[in-house]
Amino acid sequence: MPELFNVCSPDDARALLCNRITPLARAVTCPLEEALERVTAVALCSPVDLPAFPRSTMDGYALRATDSYGASEGLPAYLRLIGEVPMGQQAGLRVGRGELAKVHTGGMIPDGADAVVMVENTQLVDETTLEVVRPVAIGENVIPIAEDIHRDAPVLPQGHVLRPQDLGALAGVGIVRIEVVARPLVAIMATGDEVVEAGSAPAPGQVRDINTYTISSLVRHSGAEPHSYGIVPDQFERLCACARRALDENDALIISAGSSVSTRDMTAAAIEGLGAPGILVHGVSMHPGKPTILAMAGEKPVFGLPGNPVSTMIAFQLFVAPALARLLGTVSPVHRMVRAHLTHNVASIPGREDYVQARLEQRGREIWAEPVFGKSNLIYTMVRADGVIRVPLDRAGLYAGDVVDVDLF
Amino acid sequence: MPELFNVCSPDDARALLCNRITPLARAVTCPLEEALERVTAVALCSPVDLPAFPRSTMDGYALRATDSYGASEGLPAYLRLIGEVPMGQQAGLRVGRGELAKVHTGGMIPDGADAVVMVENTQLVDETTLEVVRPVAIGENVIPIAEDIHRDAPVLPQGHVLRPQDLGALAGVGIVRIEVVARPLVAIMATGDEVVEAGSAPAPGQVRDINTYTISSLVRHSGAEPHSYGIVPDQFERLCACARRALDENDALIISAGSSVSTRDMTAAAIEGLGAPGILVHGVSMHPGKPTILAMAGEKPVFGLPGNPVSTMIAFQLFVAPALARLLGTVSPVHRMVRAHLTHNVASIPGREDYVQARLEQRGREIWAEPVFGKSNLIYTMVRADGVIRVPLDRAGLYAGDVVDVDLF
Repeated sequence: MPELFNVCSPDDARALLCNRITPLARAVTCPLEEALERVTAVALCSPVDLPAFPRSTMDGYALRATDSYGASEGLPAYLRLIGEVPMGQQAGLRVGRGELAKVHTGGMIPDGADAVVMVENTQLVDETTLEVVRPVAIGENVIPIAEDIHRDAPVLPQGHVLRPQDLGALAGVGIVRIEVVARPLVAIMATGDEVVEAGSAPAPGQVRDINTYTISSLVRHSGAEPHSYGIVPDQFERLCACARRALDENDALIISAGSSVSTRDMTAAAIEGLGAPGILVHGVSMHPGKPTILAMAGEKPVFGLPGNPVSTMIAFQLFVAPALARLLGTVSPVHRMVRAHLTHNVASIPGREDYVQARLEQRGREIWAEPVFGKSNLIYTMVRADGVIRVPLDRAGLYAGDVVDVDLF
Repeated sequence: MPELFNVCSPDDARALLCNRITPLARAVTCPLEEALERVTAVALCSPVDLPAFPRSTMDGYALRATDSYGASEGLPAYLRLIGEVPMGQQAGLRVGRGELAKVHTGGMIPDGADAVVMVENTQLVDETTLEVVRPVAIGENVIPIAEDIHRDAPVLPQGHVLRPQDLGALAGVGIVRIEVVARPLVAIMATGDEVVEAGSAPAPGQVRDINTYTISSLVRHSGAEPHSYGIVPDQFERLCACARRALDENDALIISAGSSVSTRDMTAAAIEGLGAPGILVHGVSMHPGKPTILAMAGEKPVFGLPGNPVSTMIAFQLFVAPALARLLGTVSPVHRMVRAHLTHNVASIPGREDYVQARLEQRGREIWAEPVFGKSNLIYTMVRADGVIRVPLDRAGLYAGDVVDVDLF
């Protein structure tokens, strides 16, 4: 019963799959307040100048900067106060030579003025006369028209994951509805004659379904929409029928493939039956997660993830998350990583990437990563961990004190 | 018009506020599949042993380890195959001395057996005789009962933010409904006579509302539920009435407070009117974000955030996010930080914390942070940035090449 895996490295495996995936062409229009973490379907340009008028950045007085030149505490400039610019309205007055107008932070700079002197640097002499005790430069304390963004300038590229500031910036230029990429629909099938619903009472020899929950959550974190197809028994015809239906109704299919060689073989055969090009990768030089299957059925990626819950999660991050990002037309988030110092030596086997669960600990300004010991296939080692450390293919281990990247889970 | 701020450091300001906040006592029961990123309302213990029976981690044969001692390629142990353990069922047989039973990965170890020899280290001689060519130790390739988690052992503490692996781990022990802390309801009021709805066409002197969108998004990211109360004009009675209603209907109130001193004073007076203990902090030694107001009205935190959109976001991360975490009974996420090398010198003023927008760039294995130049109060500087760098109170700046922490936005 040899395992005839065509094993390749994790990076090669990911590239083999992702290079075949084209972004979904489906877009939906969505109001800005529901667009957080959605992905832009088109590049966006600003329809307006922001701001549309020159604004004061201070409470103070708008004036011609030249009128303040040379002003000091000992020798103030005396200028004539001609009025106040009301907030939210046209300035409605014109500042001439030797004049100034009161203006609030965010208010419009009146015609004729080219700078604002802060209220702290002035002194009211009488109702219409003001001392200015410090000079200001042209443009000082003023946001000119379009300094934030120009009309027709690019706001956001296509394939951008929308953050809070992006929504604010779109609101600022009046874009309140936006085309976003539809969430990829992802079918999840759990398999295994020993697996029962988490809510049921397992008989001797049975275990509760863990992977549907972890995979669904990871799918959500990837910006996609999980659809569970329940637990399918290890019968080839039922597996094939369910996989076919799940694939038809979704953009991608994940089969939590059971752990024994026979169920993995059955999963592989079922995946191969879904259509060309079929299986691209069967076996990856990593631990845990070696028996991962990566395939394409037409335009749709199909995954056979190993049944052990830790392998499932690690294989998801390495292969499914980037594939879903690609369906969304975006790139994987690169910043879910923390650099930390390793507390203990970690042994590994050269020729495979090892993934070791670790707990993070802040020690002063430094972050330390402590490996979580225990069998790597127990779900509770992941619960006790904050993430996993990758031990590269060509290393026989890592040393205490080494700086490592911890992928957060 | 002096600014009579009682300015304190960001750390002191946060402590002053957060020390007064007690976690919400409200919990809701929620099915596991909707519990991602919710916060546990109670500590959870496992109702069962996981696994409930000893399981094989390999495809192979269950046996008594002592029967394999001394076995080698040259001198195999010959053992009698008595049957196969079906997946998902009681083993249903007993392995005696000199016997073994076929077992699949995840299958139950039959009575009498104490180890599993991998299929790769065996050779079938005839239907009932097997050669074992390598010895196994007692417990080898076996997950004993409760190795993942013991009955009554703590699963998750109270105040834990639920991750994918936590949901899987709860499913594994049959917990499919869970008590989570209710999402804090957070009222958001925008103020300012110059501010109009983002969807409307601003007249000269008017600007579109940005802060309602950024604040709502940040509230969502904090695990709370935003409720917008729209844009309130700068009229004291209306401001007070709206603030009172918003606070009554929610667990916290955020007023985007306008930027001019007069509107800030009005906001402060309205907040003070909401009840004791009232304003705790008015002015923080930071830039941008100095005119931040932190208050408590009874048990409810109230925030007056400065009107400039960048100040709003930075003050939110520094003060509102930890306060909402406290309402949820959890701690702020500490790992939304990336350590990077600075590309350019950054000037600052000692005595205040400066926050500088920065873009991250991966250069080989290193991450570099490039300051985004431009006025710090423009929303598009945040769009062009990945996060902000903090320049500590006592520093006059940072040097190119310095290692800095970038808070991701």
